[in-house]
Amino acid sequence: MPSSAILLISCPDRKGVVASIADFIFNHNGNILFADEHGDGATNLFLTRVEFDPKDFDFNLTQFAERFAPIAGEFQMDWRLAHSGDRPRIAIFVSKYDHCLQDLLYRHHNGELHCEIPLIISNHPDNQRIADFYRVPYFVVPLSRDNKREAEQKQIELVREHQCNLVVLARYMQVLSNEFIEAFGSEHLINIHHSFLPAFVGSKPYHQAFQRGVKLIGATAHYVTQVLDDGPIIEQDVVRIHHRDTIDALIQKGRDLEKVVLSRAVRWHIENRVLLYGNKTVVFQ
Amino acid sequence: MPSSAILLISCPDRKGVVASIADFIFNHNGNILFADEHGDGATNLFLTRVEFDPKDFDFNLTQFAERFAPIAGEFQMDWRLAHSGDRPRIAIFVSKYDHCLQDLLYRHHNGELHCEIPLIISNHPDNQRIADFYRVPYFVVPLSRDNKREAEQKQIELVREHQCNLVVLARYMQVLSNEFIEAFGSEHLINIHHSFLPAFVGSKPYHQAFQRGVKLIGATAHYVTQVLDDGPIIEQDVVRIHHRDTIDALIQKGRDLEKVVLSRAVRWHIENRVLLYGNKTVVFQ
Amino acid sequence: MPSSAILLISCPDRKGVVASIADFIFNHNGNILFADEHGDGATNLFLTRVEFDPKDFDFNLTQFAERFAPIAGEFQMDWRLAHSGDRPRIAIFVSKYDHCLQDLLYRHHNGELHCEIPLIISNHPDNQRIADFYRVPYFVVPLSRDNKREAEQKQIELVREHQCNLVVLARYMQVLSNEFIEAFGSEHLINIHHSFLPAFVGSKPYHQAFQRGVKLIGATAHYVTQVLDDGPIIEQDVVRIHHRDTIDALIQKGRDLEKVVLSRAVRWHIENRVLLYGNKTVVFQ
Amino acid sequence: MPSSAILLISCPDRKGVVASIADFIFNHNGNILFADEHGDGATNLFLTRVEFDPKDFDFNLTQFAERFAPIAGEFQMDWRLAHSGDRPRIAIFVSKYDHCLQDLLYRHHNGELHCEIPLIISNHPDNQRIADFYRVPYFVVPLSRDNKREAEQKQIELVREHQCNLVVLARYMQVLSNEFIEAFGSEHLINIHHSFLPAFVGSKPYHQAFQRGVKLIGATAHYVTQVLDDGPIIEQDVVRIHHRDTIDALIQKGRDLEKVVLSRAVRWHIENRVLLYGNKTVVFQ
Repeated sequence: MPSSAILLISCPDRKGVVASIADFIFNHNGNILFADEHGDGATNLFLTRVEFDPKDFDFNLTQFAERFAPIAGEFQMDWRLAHSGDRPRIAIFVSKYDHCLQDLLYRHHNGELHCEIPLIISNHPDNQRIADFYRVPYFVVPLSRDNKREAEQKQIELVREHQCNLVVLARYMQVLSNEFIEAFGSEHLINIHHSFLPAFVGSKPYHQAFQRGVKLIGATAHYVTQVLDDGPIIEQDVVRIHHRDTIDALIQKGRDLEKVVLSRAVRWHIENRVLLYGNKTVVFQ
Repeated sequence: MPSSAILLISCPDRKGVVASIADFIFNHNGNILFADEHGDGATNLFLTRVEFDPKDFDFNLTQFAERFAPIAGEFQMDWRLAHSGDRPRIAIFVSKYDHCLQDLLYRHHNGELHCEIPLIISNHPDNQRIADFYRVPYFVVPLSRDNKREAEQKQIELVREHQCNLVVLARYMQVLSNEFIEAFGSEHLINIHHSFLPAFVGSKPYHQAFQRGVKLIGATAHYVTQVLDDGPIIEQDVVRIHHRDTIDALIQKGRDLEKVVLSRAVRWHIENRVLLYGNKTVVFQ
Repeated sequence: MPSSAILLISCPDRKGVVASIADFIFNHNGNILFADEHGDGATNLFLTRVEFDPKDFDFNLTQFAERFAPIAGEFQMDWRLAHSGDRPRIAIFVSKYDHCLQDLLYRHHNGELHCEIPLIISNHPDNQRIADFYRVPYFVVPLSRDNKREAEQKQIELVREHQCNLVVLARYMQVLSNEFIEAFGSEHLINIHHSFLPAFVGSKPYHQAFQRGVKLIGATAHYVTQVLDDGPIIEQDVVRIHHRDTIDALIQKGRDLEKVVLSRAVRWHIENRVLLYGNKTVVFQ
Repeated sequence: MPSSAILLISCPDRKGVVASIADFIFNHNGNILFADEHGDGATNLFLTRVEFDPKDFDFNLTQFAERFAPIAGEFQMDWRLAHSGDRPRIAIFVSKYDHCLQDLLYRHHNGELHCEIPLIISNHPDNQRIADFYRVPYFVVPLSRDNKREAEQKQIELVREHQCNLVVLARYMQVLSNEFIEAFGSEHLINIHHSFLPAFVGSKPYHQAFQRGVKLIGATAHYVTQVLDDGPIIEQDVVRIHHRDTIDALIQKGRDLEKVVLSRAVRWHIENRVLLYGNKTVVFQ
């Protein structure tokens, strides 16, 4: 795959915005490879993701902000530029369940996830061996009722030291404080919840699902906000269950869902396919 | 398909129950065609559906209750006997949306639903023409804030006059009173709700789904209890939506889901595949 | 939904093509609502669908071809312009099975399909009553081993007289001659095949599927070419089957698939979302 | 989960067979936990899987064959008895692609697969490290055009030495000789093929799918017979693809399918849920 530049923009919907962007890229000798536009009628918002080949660009991309400023200003754009060669740095948080961790590390290893994973943080020592296999530093930050504040400070320091710009909660079984969330911002925190949200918020969703007698179970990957399990949804999926399935069987079937749903969300985030607006996301394919 | 007898049983799980049933049928010269058993560990309940060929049975099935009484008593069985030739009588309730009505009538017409549909009841005259096409009597019982009690009395009378043993709410946009529900009993009332329950209970679930930004929408067929949208679930399914889908698009995609989910639930009920226990169902395939 | 113009283009992939199109629309005061681009690496083809609001356009769309000619020529574009208000005229062909016919007519009736259906052609009289219900003229053109050529001539005349630009084979159980196909062209002929192509080409695919012991059955909507069941695929879907499902049960489950798959394909075609290239299609959402 | 005995039977369908089995178990003080019956109308075959609790059985299960012989003889049964505590011994064959291997080892490790995996055989050294992580002996048997016969002899010896009763081809990219297949028998050889069989038999199925322009890709787990990719299907599934997906993207999406489909097939086989008859399987849930 040749390298490409990815321009993500959201702005009020106005005539000429597509042409202005396309012109700008063309006039500077870029070639648009893919472009997706989405107009959200309800909010009059225009969202776009433009992927272009900057090989013959007539200025260096480091000057992009300066050069693009007049257009961005005119259309009141909220924008960012990424490069297909960028490798976001991800901190994985995990407790004892290892299926999502294992899956992310495997996908990273085989090249599906174009990112760096400089560290794993856990409140338990259990997953050290997997981390070692994939040669990722593993930090245990024990948590108790009494040390949550200090522990989170330690976590924040570790993430910052390792210069991560995304925290993935890969079945990390602790509720984060508002301070923690604010330290990174919602758009830098992805969680996997093991239900089809908004059904079965909170703890033990498979038990809740079993009690309610649903015929399908689900999993949801979302950005983390200060309201539990209420953040913008990136991806969801479901699987059919059978009346013979015990809670243990739900948990087992759910594992396959959780890891696929979380890995899709992480990949799309990494590939700059996800645009947040309000409490929703657009995922450009 | 040859005709068969269907025995549905739930009872406390105890050694010998399967053998007692199988023996009884065999000793009276019946041939078991299919049998499904389900033991619910949590409640220690045994549920079974046995389909047998009664062609050579050595007594008339009208005497079944009497003959089966000793076994039923010994194992404290809650049981019923149905016949594949039985054609349950269904009253369809509908408001203005016609897709579920149309779908049920079409499936009935082409032989998918082994039942009688002696009447349709609506609070609007709109669907008369469809009823006429399928030659099903159509009764309009207008509803207003002031006449709900009388209207429901009228509906109950109509259902009883036509000797129906199942009421299907095929997008009937009115909440039923407890009196109405008690008149027939939950296990004789099936509703389709246009969300993946328990998410988006109540009115305008597609609007709720749109606001929440879910990535899949669903539909749920369930028995009706006195708590809104809380009854035992018979069937659910979902469909993926796209960020370009407006609320109208959700409604359109949802129609296809609703009718498939409702028709499966009605068919399984008719074919005596659904066993209610507590707030759950078992659906035997 | 406001009315929009839809520009469909395929051409060799070259720098500046997106900007040229966007500029052209902007310079004439149009507002791009949605745009999808697809670059097919294997064939170096660029495909796009641009939907724009022509309300304030500074020339009449009847002059579009003339005005757009320089750009179309420069980039060797194969293009067409449609309008969201266009209502393509569809001839439905059907034999005895009525589920796809019924489904298309119902969707047309409730506004899902923005088209005209001026006639139905069948080799059997059976579906007259449905046609009458939806007030669509129904022509019976009987077919025998001896009259195929004459019958097809009659069919072609009927389609032309009614000025249809799409023929939908809604479970029409006859193989079309090459002359028939050439009369309209592949891109104006949509068929539903009741298997997951390329598995189970030809007749009785559900029987073939049953014999092979597959665990899912499928349906495929495709454009019709001179090689049986080999045309470009527009849409496919599958449904899980159970080992208790007889061939009749497969046929019943398959009906639900066939009608959903066919109606999606017809809708996407009507909405100018399908672009043919080689033996493939792109479906823009 | 308490331990249970599993009785798998196929025989000509005849009155009394269910009762005879149920009686036998009950008379010897066993408690039937689950039972599934399937009558295959086309072949007049009766297939059943009965799971019972043998805790209070009045004879030792080692005598089961002798005691059950009269019934088995009378009904011409083909039967076997398994125990939920049995741990089948599996040899995994793999080439370079490691996703199915990794997935099976992970599931074995976390308790999803109740089996032993005493060895892995590969024609390449690449997956040694994964084998080491899971502490499974890894044997490299190099293959060339000239040594296929000797290599297969070596493989057969290794499998026999390690007393395996199932060979799982987890993306083993070599066609097996008839001698190899006969050495173990079809019902002891499971393969994963990366297409929705019978579509795209043979090599490079994702390339074939890409060329054909299908809208879904699939994977199929099946027993291995002497006709390539033609054996009895145990499980299949599909995933939707997008027109932007390159062949590499299909391969990536396919990996997730392959491993889920193969692991389901292996699990069901291990749990004695799969009954072979003719070129089909019944999978009892």
